[in-house]
Amino acid sequence: MSRADARLLVVPVVEDGGVTRLHDPSAHSFASDNYAGAHPEVMQAILDANGGHVGSYGADPYTARLAEVVIETFGEGSSIDPVVTGTGANVAALQALTPRWSAVICAATAHVYTDEGGAPERLGGIKLLTVPTPDGKLTPELIDRQAHGWGDQQRPQPLAVTITQSTELGTVYTPDEIRAITDHAHALGMRVHLDGARLANAAASLGVPLRALTRDAGVDSVSLGGTKNGLVLGESVVTFSEEARAGLVFLRKMDAQLLSKMRFVSAQFLAMLDDDLWLRSAAQANGMASRLATGLADLPGVTITQPVDANAVFVVLPRHVVEPLREAHRFYDWNRASGEIRLMCSFDTRPEHVDRLVADARELLGS
Amino acid sequence: MSRADARLLVVPVVEDGGVTRLHDPSAHSFASDNYAGAHPEVMQAILDANGGHVGSYGADPYTARLAEVVIETFGEGSSIDPVVTGTGANVAALQALTPRWSAVICAATAHVYTDEGGAPERLGGIKLLTVPTPDGKLTPELIDRQAHGWGDQQRPQPLAVTITQSTELGTVYTPDEIRAITDHAHALGMRVHLDGARLANAAASLGVPLRALTRDAGVDSVSLGGTKNGLVLGESVVTFSEEARAGLVFLRKMDAQLLSKMRFVSAQFLAMLDDDLWLRSAAQANGMASRLATGLADLPGVTITQPVDANAVFVVLPRHVVEPLREAHRFYDWNRASGEIRLMCSFDTRPEHVDRLVADARELLGS
Amino acid sequence: MSRADARLLVVPVVEDGGVTRLHDPSAHSFASDNYAGAHPEVMQAILDANGGHVGSYGADPYTARLAEVVIETFGEGSSIDPVVTGTGANVAALQALTPRWSAVICAATAHVYTDEGGAPERLGGIKLLTVPTPDGKLTPELIDRQAHGWGDQQRPQPLAVTITQSTELGTVYTPDEIRAITDHAHALGMRVHLDGARLANAAASLGVPLRALTRDAGVDSVSLGGTKNGLVLGESVVTFSEEARAGLVFLRKMDAQLLSKMRFVSAQFLAMLDDDLWLRSAAQANGMASRLATGLADLPGVTITQPVDANAVFVVLPRHVVEPLREAHRFYDWNRASGEIRLMCSFDTRPEHVDRLVADARELLGS
Amino acid sequence: MSRADARLLVVPVVEDGGVTRLHDPSAHSFASDNYAGAHPEVMQAILDANGGHVGSYGADPYTARLAEVVIETFGEGSSIDPVVTGTGANVAALQALTPRWSAVICAATAHVYTDEGGAPERLGGIKLLTVPTPDGKLTPELIDRQAHGWGDQQRPQPLAVTITQSTELGTVYTPDEIRAITDHAHALGMRVHLDGARLANAAASLGVPLRALTRDAGVDSVSLGGTKNGLVLGESVVTFSEEARAGLVFLRKMDAQLLSKMRFVSAQFLAMLDDDLWLRSAAQANGMASRLATGLADLPGVTITQPVDANAVFVVLPRHVVEPLREAHRFYDWNRASGEIRLMCSFDTRPEHVDRLVADARELLGS
Repeated sequence: MSRADARLLVVPVVEDGGVTRLHDPSAHSFASDNYAGAHPEVMQAILDANGGHVGSYGADPYTARLAEVVIETFGEGSSIDPVVTGTGANVAALQALTPRWSAVICAATAHVYTDEGGAPERLGGIKLLTVPTPDGKLTPELIDRQAHGWGDQQRPQPLAVTITQSTELGTVYTPDEIRAITDHAHALGMRVHLDGARLANAAASLGVPLRALTRDAGVDSVSLGGTKNGLVLGESVVTFSEEARAGLVFLRKMDAQLLSKMRFVSAQFLAMLDDDLWLRSAAQANGMASRLATGLADLPGVTITQPVDANAVFVVLPRHVVEPLREAHRFYDWNRASGEIRLMCSFDTRPEHVDRLVADARELLGS
Repeated sequence: MSRADARLLVVPVVEDGGVTRLHDPSAHSFASDNYAGAHPEVMQAILDANGGHVGSYGADPYTARLAEVVIETFGEGSSIDPVVTGTGANVAALQALTPRWSAVICAATAHVYTDEGGAPERLGGIKLLTVPTPDGKLTPELIDRQAHGWGDQQRPQPLAVTITQSTELGTVYTPDEIRAITDHAHALGMRVHLDGARLANAAASLGVPLRALTRDAGVDSVSLGGTKNGLVLGESVVTFSEEARAGLVFLRKMDAQLLSKMRFVSAQFLAMLDDDLWLRSAAQANGMASRLATGLADLPGVTITQPVDANAVFVVLPRHVVEPLREAHRFYDWNRASGEIRLMCSFDTRPEHVDRLVADARELLGS
Repeated sequence: MSRADARLLVVPVVEDGGVTRLHDPSAHSFASDNYAGAHPEVMQAILDANGGHVGSYGADPYTARLAEVVIETFGEGSSIDPVVTGTGANVAALQALTPRWSAVICAATAHVYTDEGGAPERLGGIKLLTVPTPDGKLTPELIDRQAHGWGDQQRPQPLAVTITQSTELGTVYTPDEIRAITDHAHALGMRVHLDGARLANAAASLGVPLRALTRDAGVDSVSLGGTKNGLVLGESVVTFSEEARAGLVFLRKMDAQLLSKMRFVSAQFLAMLDDDLWLRSAAQANGMASRLATGLADLPGVTITQPVDANAVFVVLPRHVVEPLREAHRFYDWNRASGEIRLMCSFDTRPEHVDRLVADARELLGS
Repeated sequence: MSRADARLLVVPVVEDGGVTRLHDPSAHSFASDNYAGAHPEVMQAILDANGGHVGSYGADPYTARLAEVVIETFGEGSSIDPVVTGTGANVAALQALTPRWSAVICAATAHVYTDEGGAPERLGGIKLLTVPTPDGKLTPELIDRQAHGWGDQQRPQPLAVTITQSTELGTVYTPDEIRAITDHAHALGMRVHLDGARLANAAASLGVPLRALTRDAGVDSVSLGGTKNGLVLGESVVTFSEEARAGLVFLRKMDAQLLSKMRFVSAQFLAMLDDDLWLRSAAQANGMASRLATGLADLPGVTITQPVDANAVFVVLPRHVVEPLREAHRFYDWNRASGEIRLMCSFDTRPEHVDRLVADARELLGS
């Protein structure tokens, strides 16, 4: 457990009318969007899906309805296969896109390379070829640094590219930027996967529908995240062709991602896609990040280090204020050498949370 | 989707006070204990755990409390690591128990061998050595059919045994039977894992605490199931020594089993272990299986094929009654050649469900 | 080291004209065809291929010529990719034939299942589905015991069958028997691989060319063995279509099977295929097995347990003669319970080796 | 096939006294030390090892004698396990050194990362953590860029370091440099592996015995190469403790690296270690590289880009001379952007080969 987590554990047990709650439901942090809980509409959907018997492993009416909603959202020929973890979604999606001897090109900062415990390589059998980027975003030119060696029997064959939207650095690809990548990759015989753990934040930031950043931009398959946008838990793979989905249901099982009571994950995705909850939640998180960046930008000695396109703010603060600020607001270091920290906003971040952090920073900076 | 699931999908959308429900909450089946939903106490625990921010990836007060409860339940030195699927639990547990070059001995009917999509072999890198059994239960003698060849460089080294409790055939190991296996295996330098997807049913059947069938019987690690006993979703690995847990948290991640909002699974396990909910649910399911077996046993042409120790009834019915009965009550074929079917009871199976099936069978049999 | 090997190690160093030799070049055994060394014509081919520089990793004139010879031997569209071990050949061939989510059906006695250290599962990611057989040979009916469950997301998908020719039990498939299997498998959407570690022995036994048992019988790819038929070392994958060879050169590398100085393996295969050396060597081994079986068959208390189609004799001897006979002639137990042993003949087994064993057996049996 | 190989294939068949040779035994290249054939003393060793029957899979007198010679060479407690490919040696050695959840730190230029088809990740299940270096050599400081995150469940655990000696850039670690790495790594709980495909060249360059660069410098295990130093084929893993060799013989089999007729590889290693053939061959290759560098260094427009410590020369030539020179002398591009090429000398490179290249370069440069 990192320092960021310490305070959140030290919470007295609250007993209230027979209910045992072990945490403070008013606590907030800027550590991660997965420190937040679930959106009430999502919780209601789980409750509604409960009771009685339905088919397991996806043979239930919620998963059937979700298949329809995904077609409404992404267009004819789209499919969704719910899974349990983001790592599992990425691995299964990339395995389905590529034969056994493939390599996949990604940014050096990609979650799939840095934060998934080697699962893509070990569980998925996929060699990752990385490219350094200034802002977490690939381009056709950057891709070309690894896009070579087809036919060379000693080189894992680059047969797919994976991009993250919004990126691990809080930046966002425009539809045109994605289209440039997919056109380039396809022309080279490579498929394109999009790690959309925070796709909603990107779409909200750009004011475009989800399909504009995925199917309409030429992407072949998407890890469509739910957890970071207010689900209890649930991820999924969305594909736009039979080719991109080849074997996916079998891969899902052999990657230990097949849920028996799938109705409960499908129902959450239905809630997320219903009445634009995904957009409302993401817009809230993005707006708070924007407010936070604005509030911090003018403080003395403060440098915002990345464009604040989505729900993350990367910032360098004078060193003496970091720990006092962390004590009260929780966040993670991004680069210990440079002192860069990451402040992440969630669907339940409210203006007062932001303003309190900014006020505390201002006070600590003596300005 | 199999025939068993067909009817359960054909359900009109029920809208009730703004709530959209896509299924009939009064539907019941004998197809699987994962056709059932979640127990209301479990659902309440999820609701209580919601709201506010807590640490992710297990650094939360629910997971911390669960660690304590597991020690209370299984004794000092016990640990629990929540995961997302039963396949994931089995793979990670077996990987932690064994070095890279190991084989694991199991019954030929073991879920880990027949129903996990090759995940133990492919994801886990584990060779499974199978032994046919009459009733799904291993014995020291049966284990010996595969327990040989240590040091033979061409043979995967048998370094662990995995048993299922209750078994895939609805039978139950007594504590003495498990002890005989663990003593034998340990004497041969092998560790013992127990796939406890339905451990609660076994304990309820025998009237013993969970630890009597696991730690006290010499087992090294357990896949402690939740989903089949009334959780929304959630599985876990329970270990009784540091050796059995070596690397488990890293394996959990590289097997794509690490939950970010772990509080929601831990809270469910807390509910399951609190006030003996696990026992109440399992006893209900077991009792209904017993009632079912009793009701069917005397009907003409009906043969109960396995001891009804837990919540499953394996039975051969005259062929002409199978399909009409399936239409109304849902169940799976077990052995098409012999006509054996499996009837599975759940925590929410009630006497009227059982009695209706028995009555329908009696009527169809014309007795 | 097993008992069979003990004597062969206890050999005085023989120095002869500056040459240091650590073994007795006149020693013979019935333990395995890989106890034998290399055929002199093979050795000469290695010598001829030496000297000077040629391209590595297959870009050499010996590998180029081998490609031509393989087309002459197996027909237009055939390809050969040399590898280093038989396990490597089987794994790479099966990986090339099947997508990531596949299972492969094999006999329960198949080398690929019992003797390859779990490499097909662990290195290849292939689930093996086994079928018991009386004689090591699959049939369409036996294949059907595992050929089901396509589309069932929890079952590894059976997408290939592998047969061994000659089998691990010394039996041989006729061309018609193979054709029945390939027709059946192809009709079910499965491909067929043939583990031909001893293909030469089968062809010699039947008096047919190699292609009659492979390409002409509908087989998709073959592990064409060299080592057991008189090579120093060298195996290969022979394929008959682009589909069967998809990705094979990349799989060969990622399976650690790519030789840098490939000329030396290709030159050996050229020698083996030149002037029918494969046939001369295999016929010699087969003939000696036949002579051995004939000599033993009439002895009192001796039972030949499998048809002697190739170069192996499986036999049960009265127990008191086994160890004295083993001491002098070296062989392996096949089934300790029944007392069955395996006697294997090699390209360099001569009549006097056989006759001496038969004479010793007769004397020990007091007949 | 790359351009480097083209000419070497276009060779008329030479028939000489019944001998069929498909290549020109006087051809030479600077493309790779694996374009060369085998040293005559090695060839003689193979011939001597032939004939008669010996135990397979290592139970033979040559492998037994090799075990003794390795102890003489590296000291008490040393072991050698022959394998078939360098990739296989690296994978098996690293697997034996580390548990399932490990990562291994290496230079970004390491063969294990760039040239092994993803085998370490896919076959070995090992995550590689790379560090850029100026000269292919790691240092304690460079290692520290990846040596962190122990206990962080989302990070593959760095539990070993692998260094290449001599490096892929033709540079050499001194014993002190290796000792600094092993002391540092061990203090951090990491083991150290040395990829010694060209260890002989490093030892010859430094004038030290093989053990000075390995065991005496604190290295835990070594991939001891043979092929690049004049063997037909053959690699091995040399370990210096039981811990470093844990499970190695089983890993060798499951990585498809176990040779049946192991005598033929062991006999080659015996020849290589006998009468310092390894040193004579390596010294010859090194000396020729030195002569080559000296000859080229003074030519106009020529830049030697790396220290010439072993048998490789990295050099930038004026672009217009590269292709004419390649046509006559064969070599590979190293960096197309900068025009850097690699010239590799072999045990059979002779002064006239070198002098001819230098003369041709001088003439092409018009100097």
